Amino acid sequence: MRVSLFRHFPIVKQSAVLFLHCALCPSASIHSFFASSVLSVPSALTPFLLFLHAILSAEMDADLQFMQEALAEARASASAGEVPIGAVLVYDGKILARSGNRTIRDNDPTAHAEIIVLREAARLLSNYRLANTALYVTIEPCSMCAGAIIQARVPRLIYGADDPKGGAVRSCFEILSNPSLNHQVEVSSGVLAAEAASILQSFFAARR
Amino acid sequence: MRVSLFRHFPIVKQSAVLFLHCALCPSASIHSFFASSVLSVPSALTPFLLFLHAILSAEMDADLQFMQEALAEARASASAGEVPIGAVLVYDGKILARSGNRTIRDNDPTAHAEIIVLREAARLLSNYRLANTALYVTIEPCSMCAGAIIQARVPRLIYGADDPKGGAVRSCFEILSNPSLNHQVEVSSGVLAAEAASILQSFFAARR
Repeated sequence: MRVSLFRHFPIVKQSAVLFLHCALCPSASIHSFFASSVLSVPSALTPFLLFLHAILSAEMDADLQFMQEALAEARASASAGEVPIGAVLVYDGKILARSGNRTIRDNDPTAHAEIIVLREAARLLSNYRLANTALYVTIEPCSMCAGAIIQARVPRLIYGADDPKGGAVRSCFEILSNPSLNHQVEVSSGVLAAEAASILQSFFAARR
Repeated sequence: MRVSLFRHFPIVKQSAVLFLHCALCPSASIHSFFASSVLSVPSALTPFLLFLHAILSAEMDADLQFMQEALAEARASASAGEVPIGAVLVYDGKILARSGNRTIRDNDPTAHAEIIVLREAARLLSNYRLANTALYVTIEPCSMCAGAIIQARVPRLIYGADDPKGGAVRSCFEILSNPSLNHQVEVSSGVLAAEAASILQSFFAARR
């Protein structure tokens, strides 16, 4: 399993990466003022900060890489006439299951990309609880899929664009952050969001 | 398909049955005072009211009958060590699919009774939209199942007991009545609720 610092604090994590980047790369033009005038890092701390920066950057790079795979699934769904949303389920740093939406092809109202990869991963792991996994999906999950993430005890969700009409992470409902539920999910949003939204918009524009 | 008056107004429907019952059966001891003193039905209206009363009573009788079948599925789930919740999906006045929870047996986090019957019915009808159906379930659906009801466009949900910890119809979330969703579901709750709750409580008491 990949090292995941600040597991329950994605905003803290992103801020830490930015801070470390500024502190360790003062010559970069975009933040040279802050780096030179505000941040002064004792040289003894530099190796530790470099190590921390490397770990956090690697996790963010991995998020981009896996989201690209989810986007590929979304594009494949569009080609099949399905609403183009894609998902991959990552376990132990590798993709365990991947799919786009299949509701029409399978005559299955529940066959959203997220549900398919959760079911497939549980089958492969012979366990209906998916500890140590991360779910990557191109669009904010609906209430059905957010509920399934809770049922499967997925610890981490990474998604691209928000869905103002049906999103159940923060747009229409906040299923994953309800304190009465006995499972909390770490959520990262906005990963390759523009590309995810563009695929969806092109699909619906072509059908009008 | 059965006739369903007041489709979008379950409270109005139940009140109408009570009103008609009082009006048409003034000798019944429990409401003889209201019947004799408040309600006076012109005799010309009696055949129409009798007809209306018969239709509405038949629908409520059918609800009880189908909920008994869902309870039987819940009991079967308990015997298999699964959380005892049962569901039946009714189409054209007949049961099209029936199941209890199967998450543990199937290694499937999504295998709640509701999801299983929705998928099975869609497969049998070769359609991922389940128009003209009614879903009977012993306990208030969770957010996953409520979301699936929306995805499948199920027009009517009848359930037994509320679930204060995870119910997504009215307890923790109100998934089905969100005005931003483009599908509305008629909901009847409390049907054989005591029996449904008792099965669940006995199951968890035995496991403590």
